Amino acid sequence: MLSRYLYLPLLLLSFFGLSAQQNAEIPAVYEQDAREIRRIYDQVLQNSSSYDWLHYLTKRIGARLSGTPEAAAAVEYTRQMMDTLGLDDVRLEPCMVPHWQRGTYEEVRIVHSNKVGSRDLKAVALGGSIGTGPLGITADVVEVHSLNEVDTLGAAGVAGKIVFYNRPMDPTRINTFNAYGGAVDQRALGAARAGKYGAVGVLVRSMTTELDDIPHTGSMTYLPDINPIPAMGISTNDAALLSRLLQEEEVRIFMRNNSSMATEKPSYNVIGEIRGSTHPDEIILVGGHLDSWDLGEGAHDDGAGCVQSLGVIEALKQLGYKPKRTIRCVMFMNEENGLRGGRTYWENSFKAGEYHLGAIESDRGGFTPRGFSAEGHPDIFAEGYKYISQWLPLLEPYGITFEIGGSGADIGGLKDQKGMLFGLVPDSQRYFDIHHTAADVLENVNKRELELGTAAMAALVYLLDQYGIKE
Amino acid sequence: MLSRYLYLPLLLLSFFGLSAQQNAEIPAVYEQDAREIRRIYDQVLQNSSSYDWLHYLTKRIGARLSGTPEAAAAVEYTRQMMDTLGLDDVRLEPCMVPHWQRGTYEEVRIVHSNKVGSRDLKAVALGGSIGTGPLGITADVVEVHSLNEVDTLGAAGVAGKIVFYNRPMDPTRINTFNAYGGAVDQRALGAARAGKYGAVGVLVRSMTTELDDIPHTGSMTYLPDINPIPAMGISTNDAALLSRLLQEEEVRIFMRNNSSMATEKPSYNVIGEIRGSTHPDEIILVGGHLDSWDLGEGAHDDGAGCVQSLGVIEALKQLGYKPKRTIRCVMFMNEENGLRGGRTYWENSFKAGEYHLGAIESDRGGFTPRGFSAEGHPDIFAEGYKYISQWLPLLEPYGITFEIGGSGADIGGLKDQKGMLFGLVPDSQRYFDIHHTAADVLENVNKRELELGTAAMAALVYLLDQYGIKE
Repeated sequence: MLSRYLYLPLLLLSFFGLSAQQNAEIPAVYEQDAREIRRIYDQVLQNSSSYDWLHYLTKRIGARLSGTPEAAAAVEYTRQMMDTLGLDDVRLEPCMVPHWQRGTYEEVRIVHSNKVGSRDLKAVALGGSIGTGPLGITADVVEVHSLNEVDTLGAAGVAGKIVFYNRPMDPTRINTFNAYGGAVDQRALGAARAGKYGAVGVLVRSMTTELDDIPHTGSMTYLPDINPIPAMGISTNDAALLSRLLQEEEVRIFMRNNSSMATEKPSYNVIGEIRGSTHPDEIILVGGHLDSWDLGEGAHDDGAGCVQSLGVIEALKQLGYKPKRTIRCVMFMNEENGLRGGRTYWENSFKAGEYHLGAIESDRGGFTPRGFSAEGHPDIFAEGYKYISQWLPLLEPYGITFEIGGSGADIGGLKDQKGMLFGLVPDSQRYFDIHHTAADVLENVNKRELELGTAAMAALVYLLDQYGIKE
Repeated sequence: MLSRYLYLPLLLLSFFGLSAQQNAEIPAVYEQDAREIRRIYDQVLQNSSSYDWLHYLTKRIGARLSGTPEAAAAVEYTRQMMDTLGLDDVRLEPCMVPHWQRGTYEEVRIVHSNKVGSRDLKAVALGGSIGTGPLGITADVVEVHSLNEVDTLGAAGVAGKIVFYNRPMDPTRINTFNAYGGAVDQRALGAARAGKYGAVGVLVRSMTTELDDIPHTGSMTYLPDINPIPAMGISTNDAALLSRLLQEEEVRIFMRNNSSMATEKPSYNVIGEIRGSTHPDEIILVGGHLDSWDLGEGAHDDGAGCVQSLGVIEALKQLGYKPKRTIRCVMFMNEENGLRGGRTYWENSFKAGEYHLGAIESDRGGFTPRGFSAEGHPDIFAEGYKYISQWLPLLEPYGITFEIGGSGADIGGLKDQKGMLFGLVPDSQRYFDIHHTAADVLENVNKRELELGTAAMAALVYLLDQYGIKE
């Protein structure tokens, strides 16, 4: 019978005292702020619509590549959601966007290998790639690990061939964005570099540290005066296979796709704001980008950032908060393959003589937030960073810190307004498993993790509104 | 054509300078250690077997409830894996364990509601619960939110009824373990408290902040001299439904299950070690628990902790590291419903006059690690905590910090040996979505996140081995 009376104290005991919440020592001057930030977190974690909005964006609308009807639907949906929040102003900002279309087929096949015979590889066209023509391209493959290696090989080494970029993302970098930054030049510029020497196509190892069967897309560009050639991404498992084969034999590849660039389409940034009571000309921006790649549902990239930004406004409204400064929420269009929305926004903002005191972009996935990266014009950055660092005791109880680093593609152009620019920094470990793939779907977003990002952004908006960025 | 020449600098620019790696300022005295820890991380992130071992434990063996053939298989499997690592000693430490069996049916049904008629609820027996008998129990339901409320209602309020514990985990606690600690008394002691006043059964709202359809099991206990009554967990969605109905009408519930306690079974802790070269009597332990609940695969709880602990030994071996102190890896048996393995280990350790200078348990899921909680005997803790805090500059580049808090159920009993006790603290946000459910499967473990925990533990083991816990 004794076995029935399990001894439980240890089970209960080990769960206390683990939280960073215990360590907070809040200076007296910030006590009211600590209460406000607690209210913000309570509000968001209990009542935020962020996840429901993301459900609509991903499951009702789906992928939102610039120029598509789905991107237009997302513009209209988020405009309507802003309307329901009772903002002082909601408007669309027109911009023309590129309209790349994936086409109806995309194939990469090993057609000639003594070792594995004929074999289909998991492949997708890179975003922006031209098509191969209906007959496809068949050519020998040459493997390289950098753009420089293509220069070294020159026309003698690559002309008439398919160049296979196979430098992996470095798994030992703790922050996976650094690993991505160290490899993505192959995807972005690989076709242009290989085309310069007469290559007929490129294959690019997918941007992930994992070995799996999921091919990644993402933007690539052609350069003036260089013949454009088709570019496709292949899964890391297939990249590893192809590399092994190439160590022993020549491999012939067939690649075929009919993606193409359509005419530009009219589209919009979606902008809503709560006007400031005492400093309406000082703008605090929160935003993400509404467009996504066409694979998956654009759930983390960047549906998450959009609904978090909307959630910031919602929480402040629900709490009846009356900002001193203008709080503006922006859904940017076309971050993925053109940045037209961002550029248009900056241009109009500078023309109008606006001042963004602070801008926050969320575009690194809806994972547990760990802090904000901060950047700014050299004239103001050192002082600003020191000033905001005073707020750390208010944010650390929620696991939030500051670090120096890039903010976000859509807001970087505001730097000359000399405000502080921030990027939400979530845990980065899972992002490149799904980034720009068919796996970027709602099921891979955790509701609590998403909401904690919303709350962290709202807390920073609150502090920027209360205290500005200097004495 | 311009649209083809996308402008990419911003795309590349925003990914640099985000990592905590940049901020590390390593005191000169630790430069060699910084290199060693970097080597440990490189090794683990490129060559660890942790994830492959977890694949075997979860997909080949599966759930490993104490006393089952699967638990025995896990003992043998991890013993063999230790053998392959070339340790100085691998042994099994016998202990008797309770053997609770879920039985062949478990049902909870609303049999009488004007509003929804008859309706099945998603339910599982709580671990340790007796059965209802084949005819089940049918009774009116009374909803409560605490053990105290049952005392207040007394026999007049609960006798002959099914008591429904419905206090949610508090979603506003940032660390979900604190939310769990604030609610789990209902599961652990709810049946004993309700039984005291003549209730005939209990239903317990599942331990998660999410609203979903997944019922959670977990340990509960009966107390001497109180009539044991059956206890089942229901999903949070069904708990919410039941609560809504109870606001408007009386609800009759039918509950039935045939779980039971079988005879105790012989089982084992699995222990392997590398003997220290200069201080072999000072033991540094890494461990997790091999048993799991019977739903799911015990992937996070605690397959992850087991394979991370094995991975620590593997990495040190691969690097050719020769420890000064004895590094011991322990797979504890029966943490979930009896702690027999832990107790046996402590008893034998004290009898043998051992000294655990440090012990680390990983039992909070295989998510991205954020640090270690530390505890210890009051005689040594303050000094020890201050001493180890000197190492923070070495760990912070990897996102690892220390905090004061409970270590782990299986190692807590070693406190009187006056070493430092640690618990690996991962990000806690997703854990209670899957904890003790059918969703605790390998697919919900991320390989990189798991490996980062292995590396963090190995780094701490290295520092404990190099420097001990005091000057």
